Amino acid sequence: MLGLNFSFMMAETIGETGTTERKLESFRGKALEALSRIKGAMAEMPGLEFTRLPWQDITPVKEAARRLSGLENFLLLGIGGSALGPKCILEALSPLHNQRPDKRQRPKVFIYENADPCTLESILSSLDINKTGINVISKSGGTSETIAAFMVLYDLVEKSLGKEAAGRFILTTDPEKGDLRRLAAKGMASLSIPPGVGGRYSVLSAVGLLLAEVIGADTEGLLRGARDAHERCTREEFWENPAILAAVLIFIMQRDEGRKIDVLIPYSDRLKSFSEWYCQLWSESLGKQGRGLTPYPSVGTTDQHSQVQLWMEGPRDKVVIFIRVEDHGADFTIPDVFGGYESMSFLRGHGLSGLINAEEEATELALAKNQRPNMTITIPSLDAYHLGQLFYFFEIVTALTGFFLEINPFDQPSVEEGKRLTFGLMGKKGFEDKKKEVVEARDKKSCYKV
Amino acid sequence: MLGLNFSFMMAETIGETGTTERKLESFRGKALEALSRIKGAMAEMPGLEFTRLPWQDITPVKEAARRLSGLENFLLLGIGGSALGPKCILEALSPLHNQRPDKRQRPKVFIYENADPCTLESILSSLDINKTGINVISKSGGTSETIAAFMVLYDLVEKSLGKEAAGRFILTTDPEKGDLRRLAAKGMASLSIPPGVGGRYSVLSAVGLLLAEVIGADTEGLLRGARDAHERCTREEFWENPAILAAVLIFIMQRDEGRKIDVLIPYSDRLKSFSEWYCQLWSESLGKQGRGLTPYPSVGTTDQHSQVQLWMEGPRDKVVIFIRVEDHGADFTIPDVFGGYESMSFLRGHGLSGLINAEEEATELALAKNQRPNMTITIPSLDAYHLGQLFYFFEIVTALTGFFLEINPFDQPSVEEGKRLTFGLMGKKGFEDKKKEVVEARDKKSCYKV
Repeated sequence: MLGLNFSFMMAETIGETGTTERKLESFRGKALEALSRIKGAMAEMPGLEFTRLPWQDITPVKEAARRLSGLENFLLLGIGGSALGPKCILEALSPLHNQRPDKRQRPKVFIYENADPCTLESILSSLDINKTGINVISKSGGTSETIAAFMVLYDLVEKSLGKEAAGRFILTTDPEKGDLRRLAAKGMASLSIPPGVGGRYSVLSAVGLLLAEVIGADTEGLLRGARDAHERCTREEFWENPAILAAVLIFIMQRDEGRKIDVLIPYSDRLKSFSEWYCQLWSESLGKQGRGLTPYPSVGTTDQHSQVQLWMEGPRDKVVIFIRVEDHGADFTIPDVFGGYESMSFLRGHGLSGLINAEEEATELALAKNQRPNMTITIPSLDAYHLGQLFYFFEIVTALTGFFLEINPFDQPSVEEGKRLTFGLMGKKGFEDKKKEVVEARDKKSCYKV
Repeated sequence: MLGLNFSFMMAETIGETGTTERKLESFRGKALEALSRIKGAMAEMPGLEFTRLPWQDITPVKEAARRLSGLENFLLLGIGGSALGPKCILEALSPLHNQRPDKRQRPKVFIYENADPCTLESILSSLDINKTGINVISKSGGTSETIAAFMVLYDLVEKSLGKEAAGRFILTTDPEKGDLRRLAAKGMASLSIPPGVGGRYSVLSAVGLLLAEVIGADTEGLLRGARDAHERCTREEFWENPAILAAVLIFIMQRDEGRKIDVLIPYSDRLKSFSEWYCQLWSESLGKQGRGLTPYPSVGTTDQHSQVQLWMEGPRDKVVIFIRVEDHGADFTIPDVFGGYESMSFLRGHGLSGLINAEEEATELALAKNQRPNMTITIPSLDAYHLGQLFYFFEIVTALTGFFLEINPFDQPSVEEGKRLTFGLMGKKGFEDKKKEVVEARDKKSCYKV
């Protein structure tokens, strides 16, 4: 089960920048109120529909996966919340999947999450597009990057396979609205994202689960982990609920100590994408009305050699959240080679997993000694069950933090203007004024360049 | 040639949070003084030795690459500055290198930059270690993660190849000091990192160049790009020097506007690792004495669907630095499929490169309209020559910004304590007190967990 250790957030260990039991306790009422919104009030706030996903019926996902079985490759088109969740699942549960073909002949997996033509060219040179199942994911059904890639690829497949092309695509989108849904109604296979589940809360919907099924991950385990996390994270016992404690600590640190950057550093390469997923969840949910928290992606030990200097001695504006994996599921013992060199001899006989976990523990303490608050989430091992817990825990923490900040953690009002200006530049009808605006800005911009 | 457009940093376009020509001009003296340190004063500050790298003799690197020719794989062991630079070169100049074997039979490339046993297991299951050249990179010659991996792999190779094992390794390290240099003296091939070149400024030394040679990149082009960037970035004409202007703008924004987070968002997947390289350079160089700037890694358009909400409407604590690639070197025209759906029809006939670049331009303007300062670095194409310019430009900007902040951009004093505590935990002689400290901290930490 996921654990949280927040000793290095407390004044008694890190000095006055830390907090106290009393201060935490003073949040009890506020926290329980926020919790009751999560537990009961989906009608009031449809964005909370993600809390129902752990109990969903996954039959449609399993059927969709079966449709693709036998194909050599699985190509996912999506961006933001429609790609990061699946990417996490792939990297955490089947790292280097494509380099190590499964004995049961699972398809290779490719994720195209940009409008970069070079990446698409590389992907197309790495697979036979005619032996590929393509999952197009867009909640709205109209995300330009995803739709553009879909159009390019549909055209390619259709040129080879004619009418059979449609059978190679699965559209994952809103159950009723949008152009992808309209296309599905004309006879393309589809999966639904429940209406109240926003892209960034969608990993445990068909968005992430189809890929999980395709790679042979333990999909039921993911959901069971999320259900168990739900049980723990909605407990009313203030001091026993890790989500409430984490959210309150993060909120206090930003409000009272100006610590507005929350670094997430899992000590496992397999959670590097998880760190990016968390950043998307956090940025879009909590950056609003001039308020908000900046999440920071990281991975240990690698980023000790990149960012620790800044965390230790730079501005006192960060909280560091460690993820520690007790059992990495693999190990290498450092052997007795090269004789008595100082930088080598003490390593002998230890495992690499001992080294990575020692560095994790040492970095926690080094930060604490320098009065830099940090807390640690522990999981016993990185399997589907615990990954499900991690996803769900962070989603609940995000929602709670949003409620404390008094913002709506389920909308993203400020991404629209960029879209409108892009529509203008691309010549979309009705956006002629936006095109004019960009062109005028170009003139202005001609002054200051070198 | 690399260009800089900083119109959206100016008050006349983004309102009062922006700066003015007059304010910039007032920095002229300070800037030219900082520049004179870079141009002349290596004796005073050995860390500036990186400015000599563009003129180095690359014969030893070419010879080392030849020693490895004919092997199936190239495995690089390094962490932080010893891995990020090479990774940038690989991803920018030969993306998906391993999926698309070069016609001239270049080796597949693997980079192990952690102590994660799962990653090493995955790598070992993807290659034949007996047909692999291994480049061990550590400036100090004693980086625990790198040394541990080296010991594990040497043992493996020696078990198969016996005495021939040594011939498969190339050690890249300090020319005189450290355990890797001592091993090299006993007969292992080696390359040198000049003494004054810190890990994070080492990409254009043997650290990055051996990999560049191995993948068949244009190594001379990289250095030529750096030389041309040196010429531009050391010009005394204040208004014509992009490095001075960028550093002054960044410094003013943090000092006068509290904008202490500098996001780098290249609109190209091939520069995603560059964004991480920049973060390491920036974090270790500029996070000191309670001061400093937090660099933020990003990639467009992907992170528009992740972070733009936060940049647009969150705290006013960021400067966004775009990198725009004019010609992506590949393209796909969006075809005429699916009839008249609203989200599709306007895309037809455009290229994906048109879409990605339109989104870049639109996002600049959307931020500017919301009084969010941003500037844009442009390169005509992403080849070795322009990558060399990018590396060198950012190194000079970092050094200049460090001088403005009145800190030493070439040391990293605060990473030592974590190392000492790790040594304690791993049982290194002389660090027994550190072990005691960690164990005592464990007791303290037992109170606050759930």
